[in-house]
Order: sequence, then C-alpha cells, then structure tokens
Amino acid sequence: MMISAPPDLIFHTLTQNTDSKARAGMLYLPHGPVSTPVFMPVGTNGTVKAIDRDSLEDIGFDIILSNTYHLYLRPGKDVLEKAGGLHRWSRWRKNILTDSGGFQVFSLAPFRKLSEDGVEFRSHIDGSYHMLTPEKVVEIQTIIGSDIQMQLDVCTGWGTEYREAEKALEVTGRWLKRAMDTWMTKKEHYEGQLFGIVQGNFYKDLRVRSLEKLLQIDPPGIAIGGLSVGEPFDVYTEFLSTTADMLPNNKPRYVMGIGTPEYILEAIGAGIDMFDCVFPTRIARNGMVFTREGTLTLKKERNEFDFGPIDAQCSCKVCREYSRSYLRHLYKSGEILSSMLATYHNLFFLKELVIDARNAIIGNHFMEFKKSFLSNYSGKS
Amino acid sequence: MMISAPPDLIFHTLTQNTDSKARAGMLYLPHGPVSTPVFMPVGTNGTVKAIDRDSLEDIGFDIILSNTYHLYLRPGKDVLEKAGGLHRWSRWRKNILTDSGGFQVFSLAPFRKLSEDGVEFRSHIDGSYHMLTPEKVVEIQTIIGSDIQMQLDVCTGWGTEYREAEKALEVTGRWLKRAMDTWMTKKEHYEGQLFGIVQGNFYKDLRVRSLEKLLQIDPPGIAIGGLSVGEPFDVYTEFLSTTADMLPNNKPRYVMGIGTPEYILEAIGAGIDMFDCVFPTRIARNGMVFTREGTLTLKKERNEFDFGPIDAQCSCKVCREYSRSYLRHLYKSGEILSSMLATYHNLFFLKELVIDARNAIIGNHFMEFKKSFLSNYSGKS
Repeated sequence: MMISAPPDLIFHTLTQNTDSKARAGMLYLPHGPVSTPVFMPVGTNGTVKAIDRDSLEDIGFDIILSNTYHLYLRPGKDVLEKAGGLHRWSRWRKNILTDSGGFQVFSLAPFRKLSEDGVEFRSHIDGSYHMLTPEKVVEIQTIIGSDIQMQLDVCTGWGTEYREAEKALEVTGRWLKRAMDTWMTKKEHYEGQLFGIVQGNFYKDLRVRSLEKLLQIDPPGIAIGGLSVGEPFDVYTEFLSTTADMLPNNKPRYVMGIGTPEYILEAIGAGIDMFDCVFPTRIARNGMVFTREGTLTLKKERNEFDFGPIDAQCSCKVCREYSRSYLRHLYKSGEILSSMLATYHNLFFLKELVIDARNAIIGNHFMEFKKSFLSNYSGKS
Repeated sequence: MMISAPPDLIFHTLTQNTDSKARAGMLYLPHGPVSTPVFMPVGTNGTVKAIDRDSLEDIGFDIILSNTYHLYLRPGKDVLEKAGGLHRWSRWRKNILTDSGGFQVFSLAPFRKLSEDGVEFRSHIDGSYHMLTPEKVVEIQTIIGSDIQMQLDVCTGWGTEYREAEKALEVTGRWLKRAMDTWMTKKEHYEGQLFGIVQGNFYKDLRVRSLEKLLQIDPPGIAIGGLSVGEPFDVYTEFLSTTADMLPNNKPRYVMGIGTPEYILEAIGAGIDMFDCVFPTRIARNGMVFTREGTLTLKKERNEFDFGPIDAQCSCKVCREYSRSYLRHLYKSGEILSSMLATYHNLFFLKELVIDARNAIIGNHFMEFKKSFLSNYSGKS
C-alpha cells in the first residue's frame, strides 16, 4: 500500500533564493502554523530546561521538541494518556515534535539489543528492561499527542563501517513502512504528522539508497539523520548539502542536533527547514551566552566591572535589563537565575538569527547575510 | 548626642485589633510604601533564588531582603559602588532590607574573633580574612543602597549562658550607637533607615536591659534578634510576645528568620510587622509546597495521577495551570522549572496568607482567622 499525505497541506515554500538553496516556508500543524526555517528548543522531559511556557511564547516559539525515550520511561504512557497528552499536561499551547527515541536508546541506555522487530534496552534511570518497536513508538507519540512524530530509526556514528551503515539504513527503511502503517490507523482521532528519516552514514551511495526507500513510502516530512555525530565540519556540510539536494521540494526537511549559529546558517543555506539542539540551553546553564561577536563566557574576570549588556544589539529582556557584571555574579554564586536569564537570551538570540535569515531569504540576499553574520561571529570571549 | 528620626514618617498603625496585639500599618520607604504585616523573601546574593524580578512584582512584593555578608564578599563593595548600588545592579525596583552580616559571620564563617571594635572572620568562599565593624557595616549597606539597614550585632544561640548573653547584648548596644553615628553622616545623600536589634537571649531581664539601651539611642525601627535559633516553639512564642510587649508602638517591629505559616501567624498576633526567612524558597527547591492543609511533598507517589492543582483554593499562576502530577514529574526529573514553579507558589501562598491576616486585623477578627487557618493547616502530605 502506498500512503501519502497531501504535502502542500503541511508545507508551502513561500520563496526560493537564487543565490543559495535556502527556503522560506510555512508548516501547517495541529497547534498552529510555523514559519520556516525554524529552530526548535529541546524540552527533553516535557519542559525546556530553565525557562517557562510564558517566556517561550514571549520569544515567539511555535514549536518545541520533546523526547519520546525520556517521556516513555518517565512519567510513562499511562500518566500521559490519563493527562490527555503532553500539551495538556505541560500546558504548552503550540506545536510539539517528538523524536522516536532511537537515538537515545543508542546513546543513553546502558544495554541495547537490535533485532528486525525493534530494539530492546535497559532504562538509564532504573535499569528496567524495555522494548521499542516502530509500531510502539508511533503508539507512544500518538498518546503524547505529538504534532510531528518521528519514525523509529537506527542511527550510526562517525566512523561506522559500510556494512553496518548499510544494515542500519535497510532496517530504518523497513521500520518506516511499519511506522506509516500504524500511523494511518490513528488518523481518525489524531492529526499529527509522521516524518521518515534518511540514514546512510557518510557513504553517498547509501544516502541515495536510504532516500529512495523513504520516497517509496512517502511520509509527509523527511529528516536527515546521522549528522552531527562526531564528524568534522566539512564532512558535515558536504553530506548535509548532497543529501538535501536529493530531497523533493514539496516536503519539509529536518536535520536533528543542529544548534550553533555556524551550523544553523549552513543548514539553512543547504535548504533545511527545521533543526533542534540542546546546545543553546545547555551552554546557558554553563554560563555561556551568544553574542554577535561569538560566545561569551560569563565567569571571566573581564566581566566583573562590565556594566553593559551581553549583546548591545540584542533587544531581549535580559539584554535590556541586566549587565554582564550582574550575570557573572549570578553564575559565580550558583544562582538558578543565571541559568534562567542565560537560557532566555540564548533562545531569543537564535530565534532572532533565524528570523533575520528568513527575511534575508525572502529579500534574496541570504548568502550576503550569512557572510556578514559569520564575519562578525568569530572568536570566543 | 541623642539621634531620632521622626517615627511617624516611616510607620503608621492604621488600626489595632482589640482581640489580639496584631497591627496593620504602612512603612514609608525610599522605594515606595510597604503595607504591614509583611513577609520579605530572602535574596541572599542579590536575587531571590529561582524566581525573577518580574514574578516577584507580579506576586506583589514591595520589599525583599539581601545579605550584607554575602554581598560584601561577592561581588564586593567596589562592584556595587560602580554599579550604582544593588537596585540598579539587580534591577529590583522596590525596597531592599539588608541584614548586617553579624548572623552570617557567626553561622557561616570558618573562623571569627570578636572584639570591642568588631568581628574579624574568614570568608567561607575563599578563606580570606576580613574585619567588620559597626561603622563599616553601615558604609557597606549605604553603598548597597539598602532602604532599611541593620546594625551589626552579636547573636547568641539557644542554650547560651547568662554571662555570655549579657556580654553580647552590651556589645550590641554600644555598636548601635556607633552605627547610628555613622548613619547620621550619610543622611545628605542617602535616605535608607537604620534598625537597632534587641538581644538578650532567653533571659527576660537581659531582653529588658537590651531594649532600654536601644531606646536611649532611638533608631527608626527595631528588630528582635536571637529568636528562631534552636529553641522550642513555646519558648519562641513566650520570648517573642514578652519582648514585643515592651516595644514602643510608634516604630516598626521586625523579627528575623520567620517563614512558616505557624510562626508567621504567631508573630503577627504578637504585634510584629516584618519578618523574613529562606524557608519557603528553600523547601520549594526541595520539592515541598504549601497548601491550606499543610505542606505537600511533590515526589510522593500519590501525586502521580493527581491532575488537580497544588491547592485548589490558590489563585496563583502555578495552581491555575499545573497539576501535582506534572510538578511531581518535574521534581523527579531534576528540572529547574520545578524549583521555579514551587518557589513562585510558596511565595504567593505566604503573600496571600499575610494579606488575609492584614484584612482580618482591619476587620478586627485576626484571632478567629488565625484559629481557622491553623485548624486546617495541620498535617503533612
């Protein structure tokens, strides 16, 4: 059975750059439209760390990410089901994308066993045994109420051998078919979308083969998996670009694990619409913030008497109110407010960067914008 | 030289209960009026933990407390002076009361040496040596820009012998005179008030003697020190009540370290106007929240499927939005949002309690209110 959602329903390219492959579009999702390109903050446990719902809405995020693996283990699907899904439980009013848990099983679980059926693993929380299958992962994400769910996939790291990478993409392809079949049975009571994932590691022929299999099954959206897994930046850009070039124009394109300005601009320039990463919120909790000149380490002594803002060009509430001197003090004193303010600023900064990039795409000068931004954004201070 | 600020300028008793000694009043301070009784959240390092300025303003706090000892050690008075004081640096727009640092020197510093001149101690942060004198403590609090500053005092704990308690109050009295003399030299450029502290441990004659000395010097406000230092609740209430009974009516009365509903209502009933404590914010970070039935431990299993709010009668934004089930999950997942939401609720809860108490005082039924509240507020769950 060939299954296909009408692609224009969920994505429309508003314009296309002539000086790059960058795209500006809109995603039409159950909890409202999302303009693309879009950076999605990560809320692993059903909340983005160190920031509340109202602040995320203030900044203007229309979609966040959450982790199926974590939510499945805690609180578990019974709580989520009785709560009426993650939106009602966490009070998030906009869209939620959930990953499939595949990546977490391979990176967090202390034990895992892969079979054609699925993946068995032990919880990193309490050591209990669990089994995830493509069908079960769709079931869980449907209970969560994800606006975009991801298929269960097998992700391989930088340095994986050809045979193993090949096996992983073959399994991923068969799992997409099973995920789509399950997802179709949900459509009467559930409006969320399902994305397939292109694997193939760093072998171009395997990337091609993975995409061919995916397009036969034709999911509403496509994620490029297996990037940002330890490879050098130039290998990343090469595989991002060659994989993106092969994708059909009429589906949203998502790359997982992209969260620095350099990677984001590279991804946008390659024609990617969606990306997420824990990076901006994690470095915030470690006292590191974005500026237009590069990242700033708050605890450095040079900030002690610096009564200027993190970034004089930033219009966020943190930069309007607080000095580097005070923020340094909060960080050094171990105050939670340090994480709260740095997280707010970093997410605002990326949101602004992506809005500016989108406007540049619409104005057909994205490459100029990218070059100009990166020429300032260099060192660390 | 006898020094006296016109007491009615800073405090006016609006009404007085006939069924208790409880008072309702207004404090007129440089950063706006403060209705009393008032609970002051503690912002040790120049911020109340796990809550931002806007949320404190939303709840309606007009005064918070900060710690001179901590701010003196970090960031130090040079930063505070160059920043233009703590209000400008921390962006807090309402009043700040600072303690003198005396209590912290005795409870936190790994070494201290008391002399007539002051107290020498080592920093708990980096082991460096420092000296605080009554004059220096006024200088520091003036740099901080405190709306109410406290004299340097010598606090003694539960179980201190008579002779030592006597010596402590004698020194405290002489230090008040020196503090007042220094404070008077600041008045041209500084509008903050100075409070003296009654000591005397748990000896009634020493409390009387300490107060007599204080009234000769006549500071604008009076704090009762040396309570909540390990004594049983009935000893606390007895000494709170007998000390408060001796105080003049025309000055604000402050008791340090009071932060549970039971202690707060006891203090209000004894005629105390101001109190502060880290308790509500500290227990919040440990996953414990106030309800009208008593404290609630979020992590308990019974909350797993409880989709009701912390307190159905509470109108705070946390109780309007979030369930016990979700809050339990945040706490168990170690999410900062757990501390943020529990802190907001606990501070809102105490603010409401004190407003309700004030309305009961004005309506002349405080004792009935207190009895009714405490009859519900019993167990822990």
